[in-house]
Amino acid sequence: MARELREHLIAIGAGVGGHFAASLGAVELTVALHATFDTPHDRVVWDVGHQAYGHKALTGRRDELVRIKRADGPAGFLRRIESPYDVFGAGHAGTSVSAALGIAEAAARTGVARRAVAVIGDGAATAGMSFEALNHAGHLRASVKVVFNDNGMSIAPNVGGLSRTGEVAAYARALGLDYRGPVDGHDLDALLDALAALRDAQGPTLLHVKTRKGCGYAPAEADPYRWHATAPFDRESGRRRTTRARVPTWTEAFAEALIRIADRDPRVVALTAAMPDGTGLDRFAERHPDRCYDVGIAEQHAVTFAAGLATEGLRPVCAIYSSFLQRAFDQIVHDVALQELPVSFALDRAGVVGADGPTHHGAFDLAYLRLIPNLVVAAPRDENELQRLLATAIDSGRPFALRFPRGTATGCDVEPDPKPLDIGKGELLRPGSDLAIATLGRTVAPALAAAEILEGHGVSAAVVDARFAKPLDAALLTALAREVGVLVTVEDHTRVGGFGSAVLELLAESAPGTRVHRLGLPDRFLDHGDAVAQWSEAGIDSEAIVEAALAAVETRERPPEPEAAA
Amino acid sequence: MARELREHLIAIGAGVGGHFAASLGAVELTVALHATFDTPHDRVVWDVGHQAYGHKALTGRRDELVRIKRADGPAGFLRRIESPYDVFGAGHAGTSVSAALGIAEAAARTGVARRAVAVIGDGAATAGMSFEALNHAGHLRASVKVVFNDNGMSIAPNVGGLSRTGEVAAYARALGLDYRGPVDGHDLDALLDALAALRDAQGPTLLHVKTRKGCGYAPAEADPYRWHATAPFDRESGRRRTTRARVPTWTEAFAEALIRIADRDPRVVALTAAMPDGTGLDRFAERHPDRCYDVGIAEQHAVTFAAGLATEGLRPVCAIYSSFLQRAFDQIVHDVALQELPVSFALDRAGVVGADGPTHHGAFDLAYLRLIPNLVVAAPRDENELQRLLATAIDSGRPFALRFPRGTATGCDVEPDPKPLDIGKGELLRPGSDLAIATLGRTVAPALAAAEILEGHGVSAAVVDARFAKPLDAALLTALAREVGVLVTVEDHTRVGGFGSAVLELLAESAPGTRVHRLGLPDRFLDHGDAVAQWSEAGIDSEAIVEAALAAVETRERPPEPEAAA
Repeated sequence: MARELREHLIAIGAGVGGHFAASLGAVELTVALHATFDTPHDRVVWDVGHQAYGHKALTGRRDELVRIKRADGPAGFLRRIESPYDVFGAGHAGTSVSAALGIAEAAARTGVARRAVAVIGDGAATAGMSFEALNHAGHLRASVKVVFNDNGMSIAPNVGGLSRTGEVAAYARALGLDYRGPVDGHDLDALLDALAALRDAQGPTLLHVKTRKGCGYAPAEADPYRWHATAPFDRESGRRRTTRARVPTWTEAFAEALIRIADRDPRVVALTAAMPDGTGLDRFAERHPDRCYDVGIAEQHAVTFAAGLATEGLRPVCAIYSSFLQRAFDQIVHDVALQELPVSFALDRAGVVGADGPTHHGAFDLAYLRLIPNLVVAAPRDENELQRLLATAIDSGRPFALRFPRGTATGCDVEPDPKPLDIGKGELLRPGSDLAIATLGRTVAPALAAAEILEGHGVSAAVVDARFAKPLDAALLTALAREVGVLVTVEDHTRVGGFGSAVLELLAESAPGTRVHRLGLPDRFLDHGDAVAQWSEAGIDSEAIVEAALAAVETRERPPEPEAAA
Repeated sequence: MARELREHLIAIGAGVGGHFAASLGAVELTVALHATFDTPHDRVVWDVGHQAYGHKALTGRRDELVRIKRADGPAGFLRRIESPYDVFGAGHAGTSVSAALGIAEAAARTGVARRAVAVIGDGAATAGMSFEALNHAGHLRASVKVVFNDNGMSIAPNVGGLSRTGEVAAYARALGLDYRGPVDGHDLDALLDALAALRDAQGPTLLHVKTRKGCGYAPAEADPYRWHATAPFDRESGRRRTTRARVPTWTEAFAEALIRIADRDPRVVALTAAMPDGTGLDRFAERHPDRCYDVGIAEQHAVTFAAGLATEGLRPVCAIYSSFLQRAFDQIVHDVALQELPVSFALDRAGVVGADGPTHHGAFDLAYLRLIPNLVVAAPRDENELQRLLATAIDSGRPFALRFPRGTATGCDVEPDPKPLDIGKGELLRPGSDLAIATLGRTVAPALAAAEILEGHGVSAAVVDARFAKPLDAALLTALAREVGVLVTVEDHTRVGGFGSAVLELLAESAPGTRVHRLGLPDRFLDHGDAVAQWSEAGIDSEAIVEAALAAVETRERPPEPEAAA
């Protein structure tokens, strides 16, 4: 069965790509877990989900895997609504031990004979919450079972002192867990024996399983970092079936900008939480190997570590995906913003991300960041504005966040010498007399396209790139609101508490009576799917903006009286 | 010097109270650290700050300590703006190793001969971010020095497997740190020797210091939990100089409500992150010792552990201070709200907290919670509404947060049988025709008082207890807005993104043209001081509401046309 499963996973990977190497390494473990435990009555909680493709195949989703991450296929991660075997959702790292401990306690409390197992990789175990959970398990002496899948890798090679010393046994025992292993995770007989012993163990027990990421597909075994996630590939040669786009991604544009700025400013250092590739910091590290930190999946530490660096005159840049930075919300408040330290945050994957789905959409950042005093929050409309905003952030000496989306950028020219911008200054990109469209970041482009179309309808729409969600360009937005009386705001972000709400707050004071129509993501979690389709569904593409603008102009009862600028 | 310092701290504690026992236990350590290291050139980073009163006394703030936590005195925690010896601010637990590691790296990078020391208690070390930082230190092999102040206590007796096994050496070594100790933290000679060795050590090194919380004051040594923080007391007898108020605190009201509900509903379990006293769960645990979890200072784990409990049919209630729940923002999004699990959050210390200052104000919760899909967010105006909202939360089977402030509640009668309320239903407490005051929670009382005063000015003000910040009572607020045309919103919460912004978002769609004036906390961090004074300064007491209402009515240009309810 393991052989068959591995074959299937390789075929799926070659055919449609996806997170690949982690699941290949967990094939025997997956088969042995389902053989040993009475799933789904016994609860197996997978951490993150990268390693759970095999689990999906064995639990009724074998054929659906060809559509993985597509709107009509299974999610890339675990989801409770997808299968009774997915007993706890995943996506962000380090949650499995907490969840399994809760399940174990609930079973003990309600008198149900049920086993609870967490399957966590050594990468995910660098997340502080996994320590919190192990420490609590050792305290409670609850019968939670932890399978520690140790392949030496996070996405990139794993970091951390524990990974360096390899003292998993001492670590587990210090926290009060019984330690078993290590066992070869590709030796099915040994694995079945070890899991049977784990099944029957009392008290909190950790089984140390050693695996090879990418096991069974030679190219992936040889370079598991590059094969962590893959595009479709030719099975024989291992060659990827992608053509390199000529337009850079936002990630590439960020990396180039950071390199350019760091070349001139020795104060700049960069931090990633185990995502050197995803954030583009691998490029930065090639250029400045001694100025890049991979701290592990440890966003909380990353931010406060950056704050410490900043107290001594450095200018750290934390490159963290929008949805992962949620982990460090308190540290941004408590350690960076309160102390007004010059830490910059580069939030990649802001807005809808498409295939990775609800755990990975960066739908909340403008709202959770702009509520923080002292923090500047911005979003670039193109690569050149990105590098200028990054220069602004580093130059400003202030806590500063900038967000940009997943995928290809605009392909615009980039100035060789990025000049800082004025904080809180937006830009009127197009004048108009009937209404104004105010937006920032990625949605500037569809707003401009909408204005073109509106002109064809005889509607004159101004377009503002506000550039900053905080501080807003109060003068520009107020003047425009008083002039045209109707604003449409657009954001690739929840409609709750974001850019549009900031505009409402401003105009309620500075231009009361202005009609404001806010376009943005709905107040619900969006599924995985195609990002372009999701923008359309959410009503933030150019067509939706046109529609909203026409409705706004038609239903306006009257323009407010222009007020004197006091 | 240690003797003199201890005498001074006891005198201060007896005279003005404050966080007391931790600092007493760290007297010798404090003296020895300042003797051994060249502070402030060498950087000593104190975790949390409870143990740093002695540090404050030794660094120029000896006489100011009698005014500690008062607006005209030093902060209760560390603050960079207060002294060059406070090299990194504190308040929330577990940040010191991250900050010190950043400082150590910056020194190495910039070629400054500077030592960086973190002083962290065994309680604070239960926070996951301290693990993340130690693990990163062990990876980097940076010369950061960690003083592990082990007194067996958090605020309450410390929890966690590590505390149970006592295997600090194994833990440190597994993460790649050199371990020294243990050393008796009250033997000054031994301590000076150990610190001198630590000072000269290379690479990441942890010195294990054993101390007794409350050391040198017999009543505090005998009961360090009760003496963690204290009111002024009689030094001879140890008797506190407080009179028990007859009106219960919000905390007590919450505890009583939880007990009443749990008595009838066996699904209810309660969780605290090392704050059994502060959250009132000590009372709950007396009644239901087997239904209360203290997970340590581990808010992230607390929330996902609760989510795990909830998947199996339990109804966990996480009782966590508003500002500390910021630590678990991502877990609320990713593990609770996305999966729509029935976890309730009881946020104590919402709004300004007064003496504990900027790290502890609960100024952001309405904003960071209401942006989360699927989550209900509410605030009670009195003890009876608190228990009804808690019953609503548990009964609803939905993710549900309720916030209430620090201090005495209203003293109102509490029904013996708390009935659930309708989610999203507010209450018109007072009709009015000139304007409406919409608020929720603690600020309902000053809003009602303001309406009384306004009547004396000939202004008829309606008062709405919206009760829910999410979902809003759209029907009630819209109808009222259309009727009176002017709304004043009031919240003990930042003006950015909170309740007032939610009202703006609603009315921009349902009653455009309504004038909305938002009262709330300013968009900056508020210092420590007196809460009543801070409410007044922020403009959310009854006088300020009157003033704002009068201005709103006067400057209204015209009421909007009533629109037909389509």
